[in-house]
Amino acid sequence: MSRFLTLVPVEKAVSIAVSIVAPVPDEAIPLDQAWGRVLAGSTISDIDIPGFTRSTVDGYAVRASDTTGASDAIPAILRCTGSVLMGSPSDRNVIPDTCIYVPTGAMIPDGADAVAMIEYCEPAGEEILVKRPLARGENLVRQGEDFSTGAIVLEPGRRIGGQEMGVLAATGSKTVRVRRQPVVGIISSGNEVVGVDEVPGPAQVRDANSYLCAGFVREYGMLPRMFGVCRDNEESLGPAIRAAVQECDAVLLSGGSSKDERDLTARMIAGIGEVLVHGIALAPGKPTIIGRAGAVPLIGLPGHPASAFVVLHAVAGPMFTVLSGADAPRKKTLLGVLAESIPSARGREDYVRVRVEGSQVYPVFGKSGLLNTLVRSDGLVRIPSASEGVETGETVEVVLW
Amino acid sequence: MSRFLTLVPVEKAVSIAVSIVAPVPDEAIPLDQAWGRVLAGSTISDIDIPGFTRSTVDGYAVRASDTTGASDAIPAILRCTGSVLMGSPSDRNVIPDTCIYVPTGAMIPDGADAVAMIEYCEPAGEEILVKRPLARGENLVRQGEDFSTGAIVLEPGRRIGGQEMGVLAATGSKTVRVRRQPVVGIISSGNEVVGVDEVPGPAQVRDANSYLCAGFVREYGMLPRMFGVCRDNEESLGPAIRAAVQECDAVLLSGGSSKDERDLTARMIAGIGEVLVHGIALAPGKPTIIGRAGAVPLIGLPGHPASAFVVLHAVAGPMFTVLSGADAPRKKTLLGVLAESIPSARGREDYVRVRVEGSQVYPVFGKSGLLNTLVRSDGLVRIPSASEGVETGETVEVVLW
Repeated sequence: MSRFLTLVPVEKAVSIAVSIVAPVPDEAIPLDQAWGRVLAGSTISDIDIPGFTRSTVDGYAVRASDTTGASDAIPAILRCTGSVLMGSPSDRNVIPDTCIYVPTGAMIPDGADAVAMIEYCEPAGEEILVKRPLARGENLVRQGEDFSTGAIVLEPGRRIGGQEMGVLAATGSKTVRVRRQPVVGIISSGNEVVGVDEVPGPAQVRDANSYLCAGFVREYGMLPRMFGVCRDNEESLGPAIRAAVQECDAVLLSGGSSKDERDLTARMIAGIGEVLVHGIALAPGKPTIIGRAGAVPLIGLPGHPASAFVVLHAVAGPMFTVLSGADAPRKKTLLGVLAESIPSARGREDYVRVRVEGSQVYPVFGKSGLLNTLVRSDGLVRIPSASEGVETGETVEVVLW
Repeated sequence: MSRFLTLVPVEKAVSIAVSIVAPVPDEAIPLDQAWGRVLAGSTISDIDIPGFTRSTVDGYAVRASDTTGASDAIPAILRCTGSVLMGSPSDRNVIPDTCIYVPTGAMIPDGADAVAMIEYCEPAGEEILVKRPLARGENLVRQGEDFSTGAIVLEPGRRIGGQEMGVLAATGSKTVRVRRQPVVGIISSGNEVVGVDEVPGPAQVRDANSYLCAGFVREYGMLPRMFGVCRDNEESLGPAIRAAVQECDAVLLSGGSSKDERDLTARMIAGIGEVLVHGIALAPGKPTIIGRAGAVPLIGLPGHPASAFVVLHAVAGPMFTVLSGADAPRKKTLLGVLAESIPSARGREDYVRVRVEGSQVYPVFGKSGLLNTLVRSDGLVRIPSASEGVETGETVEVVLW
């Protein structure tokens, strides 16, 4: 291994990370368990929605032409011939100069083409005084106006949230084909690393990275599987990597900030597969490794937790999006105005932690090894490699944690 | 019951919704299961982090004063007296005109106060040529610089994501006290409503709202419990409401768009508790009920799914934030520029579905009953009740779905 890394631009590293994964297989699950999952195929509506022309207000179904010119002073006078019950069709039609009461959501009787809101009507014996003119189609939704039979409702890759669950229920998808939840193996390594339940001795630190990775994996709707802390030698790391590759859809290795540790991780990956990237022009996050063993991608993260977290967002996130079969990244972004200039070196992408207050974006400067910058910030701003920085007042995009 | 609702402003409705709930009790859980949960108390660090002064680069631990004026032409020449192993303290000190090799993350030997990056050093026999001057403290993190023993790491109410998991691991929180996950009961009602596994007959619709509510509840990290579809009568609705109040921390009732249905729901809530709000100056979402039965809050949502979803965001969200013990809403917001004017009526808050493209915010106009507007939009823009609308080019805040 050479003394210095051959740095790959972030864009190229991401395109490599994305090219070595395919979406996980799909499975059918009940709709009530589908929240957070990713649709594997298009869904179509098995019916017209609504299945009938439907009132959107409480009021009187009328022929719009009967209300032409109606006003408070000169209302239209319509004979009320009955009312429609919720969930039942009307047993009579609206004929000229008559109306029928319809509650919100009820089926419009034949002959009617608009609904007069009850707020603009006044009963007078058997007659209803309608005090506003109505346009055809006013206050109703036509059969099939929302979705028509056979229409595509949602496309594959869609992540299922509350609104998707509602739409899938309405369109008859009581089971849905979704991508299986990817399982992501997590291995921490380092002679200085001890478990969370231990008290670190001199020169030792606790394993923060396994938990950082596990949380990130959960944020992508995937399942973390922790393989514990390994020492920096083949005897300890080898079995863990082989087990993780065997059992998981992707593997995150963390630790290995120093050159010797990185080289060991790279050698171990090369031993069972292939190292594709060793070093990215990214700060923090330079000592990142991307490799694969058969169909299983592996990412070697830097040891510093805050650097590891940047690489998770910049490189692992796009890979996990493809692995999950999703059509869009999990992370939300927003635009804001930079409140303080951020200098940057050309030739590498800088990711700066920021705090967002209203439309203002404040850089949270701090050494990349400090954990406290992660919990004091809301997300990251990317400074492109061709740039020497971003000035106060410029608009920047923030990737939210 | 009166014919017209007495509309309450949104702000007042929210303050009532929030005032009738208290955070659920707390429990201790293992850290690896804590993702998405809400911290019930402050956590403190049991150790200094790092526990020792630590190198942030691969290089040579030096006394900064030995490098004053160093350059490519006239490097500082320091005798290398050894190297530090990861996880172990150095067995010797850095004395004047010497240096010791340290990998990234290793403990700095006594006597050193900076680290020269390996990229700026050149070995020459037993000596190292350092070609850059160093400031004291350069390329190292001091003991306790990240967190010091006893320092508050995270405050109660914090929702635990990946970065919080990492920080909690580092600071020794192998178990964490979090709020129990609230259980939210969901009841759908309506004579026109049939289950998802049924094909709606004439004038009938499927129960979309139960699933819409369940997904929203899941987004808040809570547990939905569905009580199915009830008919619009006391015999059907009564037992469901009583069971839900018994078993759950909060109850969402949906359906009841028409006046008769709303009145029934309100009467049923009044029968076992108290109706606090019946009608909100909100569009869509006017026919909303807020009540309580003992300590259990109930929200009666409008029947139209798209209206129900607005009320979930505008009213239920703030209530669920308090119920969960969280210090901030679950929903993210962003600022954008309105690409098309939105008219609005004074005296009510309008919530308009919008699509976001870069910094541009496009209103998605559509009848409030249409489900397709939910899956074609990214979130909501609120038009305050005192406003007659928002003009093209104005900056608006979008609550993302």
